[in-house]
Amino acid sequence: MKYTHHSLKAFTVEVFLKMGCPEDQAHLAAEVLIDADLKGVDSHGIARLPGYVSLWEKDRIVSTPNIEIVHETPSTAVVDGGGGLGLVVAPEAMKVAIDKAKIAGTGWVSVRNSNHFGTAGYHAMLAVENDMIGISMTNASPLVAPTFSAERLLGTNPIAVAIPALDQPPFLADFATTTVANGKIEVMKRKGQPIPQGWAQDLEGRPSTDPSCVEQGGALVPLGGTRQFGSHKGYCLGSIVDIFSAVFSGANYGPWVPPFVSFLEPSSNPVGKGIGHFFGAMRIDAFRPAEEFKTEMDRWITRFRNAKPAPGREQVLIPGDPERTTYKIREISGIPLLPVVIDSFNTLSSKFDLKLPRPIK
Amino acid sequence: MKYTHHSLKAFTVEVFLKMGCPEDQAHLAAEVLIDADLKGVDSHGIARLPGYVSLWEKDRIVSTPNIEIVHETPSTAVVDGGGGLGLVVAPEAMKVAIDKAKIAGTGWVSVRNSNHFGTAGYHAMLAVENDMIGISMTNASPLVAPTFSAERLLGTNPIAVAIPALDQPPFLADFATTTVANGKIEVMKRKGQPIPQGWAQDLEGRPSTDPSCVEQGGALVPLGGTRQFGSHKGYCLGSIVDIFSAVFSGANYGPWVPPFVSFLEPSSNPVGKGIGHFFGAMRIDAFRPAEEFKTEMDRWITRFRNAKPAPGREQVLIPGDPERTTYKIREISGIPLLPVVIDSFNTLSSKFDLKLPRPIK
Repeated sequence: MKYTHHSLKAFTVEVFLKMGCPEDQAHLAAEVLIDADLKGVDSHGIARLPGYVSLWEKDRIVSTPNIEIVHETPSTAVVDGGGGLGLVVAPEAMKVAIDKAKIAGTGWVSVRNSNHFGTAGYHAMLAVENDMIGISMTNASPLVAPTFSAERLLGTNPIAVAIPALDQPPFLADFATTTVANGKIEVMKRKGQPIPQGWAQDLEGRPSTDPSCVEQGGALVPLGGTRQFGSHKGYCLGSIVDIFSAVFSGANYGPWVPPFVSFLEPSSNPVGKGIGHFFGAMRIDAFRPAEEFKTEMDRWITRFRNAKPAPGREQVLIPGDPERTTYKIREISGIPLLPVVIDSFNTLSSKFDLKLPRPIK
Repeated sequence: MKYTHHSLKAFTVEVFLKMGCPEDQAHLAAEVLIDADLKGVDSHGIARLPGYVSLWEKDRIVSTPNIEIVHETPSTAVVDGGGGLGLVVAPEAMKVAIDKAKIAGTGWVSVRNSNHFGTAGYHAMLAVENDMIGISMTNASPLVAPTFSAERLLGTNPIAVAIPALDQPPFLADFATTTVANGKIEVMKRKGQPIPQGWAQDLEGRPSTDPSCVEQGGALVPLGGTRQFGSHKGYCLGSIVDIFSAVFSGANYGPWVPPFVSFLEPSSNPVGKGIGHFFGAMRIDAFRPAEEFKTEMDRWITRFRNAKPAPGREQVLIPGDPERTTYKIREISGIPLLPVVIDSFNTLSSKFDLKLPRPIK
């Protein structure tokens, strides 16, 4: 069933208000989630709402966080998220980076004591509105085994980079540093199909084609898949995200990052506070006049889009194209929700005495 | 045959002096190349010396470049490399980044009008000596087809990130944003073996297992290999390197990047000057006390190194470990050179009337 993004957003705002979030933060958090659904990134949208509520009920998310700068220089800051929703902490920290960039040319903010922040891309895009390049990354609970490891030590640790153009839409890269997202493996399991070798490994650390291998204690693997195809490079990327996000800020890193699900307990010996993020904002005109840069970006984008396609392919895509296409469709025709998500919203609506959004007929 | 790094460096300095490089720049350029050979990155070491000479003979490398800052803010600069050796321009630009970081917390420098700069890792490591994290990247002549493209539009566009620790050696990631380096494909060709599917594609843009496919007009593919294994993520990474290095600075980007070999002519309609690099330096104590950060890095490194290894693997490696191992060996037992490289040095020694280094007996 499909729902208008307005109705889903209104419901989401109500849920965050019931959690005790201040009005403006409830709206911001809902906006971040709905943006993911509109872009087709269903795994990072409102389907996660019940998860946030469960963590709040366990006192693992603070709905009225004290978000503060604890250390700074002209171009850097460390922000303590006060244990709040990452959906709220992240835009706040990105704002600090943007404000620093206005004066120093660039701004770089490492964040501790936060939680899951939705899609990295949303936060990176905040810089683009200010004629800046935006960078956004976060560590995440351990689900990925480094090259040669049988153990999970890293999260899917995504990186987003948003770059403005002139007449062309912005370049927006937003990707996990693994071969595939866990969601893709779950889809194969539902279909009863084996997964390609190079997507995941089993509990012992052997490459596996069993779509249940990750939930049975195995692991996702870094971008590249196997050593032969460069998984050590994906391992480097995931590690860099972990270190910038958490070792810079004093958050938990590596295997100590607290789980995103309320039924798994965080480490009893944490090495820091909450999870960590890292944001960057680079003012275009700190390098060259913005108009000039954006004109060249238009040429870059046009040249790549017009490249001769490989057999069976229609066109070379620019990072951000697929999400823009989905956005345009869903904005008008609505956001589809899986039955399992609708059920979980039913539970929320009973719990908080809220009216469920009505599907588009 | 093997040679001491001292003798090879002395020869390399002499060659650069014959090209007309100032004394200090000849030493610096030689140091950057020999460091690559010591680390086992033979493709980026002194084997490239004849290539630099040929480009200089064609007036495509300036041996006495005017390297200057053309634009700056407290935390950023654009450097014009004056058409010089990247081996000299890059450390100079990294120094600008480091000096900015000393005052503003971080420094970010985009470079135009440069040439091949050796290994990205060498330049990133310059920051580590200053208790900073170093970042280094460069674009390169087009050899890589984006996902869904039959055309080569990107270089191997490497990224290096160097992070200091306390008692542990630094974390040093340094990798091309492709599945494999071209050198690996050449090795398979010499062995007469097919390459694994996912390393390269043919002229039409079809995945190929023919080790000659790239030299016959095909292309390397972005990290990930195929769309199914995430090559669109490698394409994002290569693009980001290209844009930061060249669109920020006004260098050539994408398919317009001039070739590294003197027998191929640069584009007659360039979109910028020379090739581009991008450097970053982040002062550790712009985020948290350096000692504290480095203590946590030791814990990070130790935890990862002691992870349970996958079957048949000895240990999880930390980025930089393999190069450190080779360095220790070659520093003592010498640097092996292929016959083809020795032949090319013979030619240089005749051309410049220089004594060849003598192999270790």
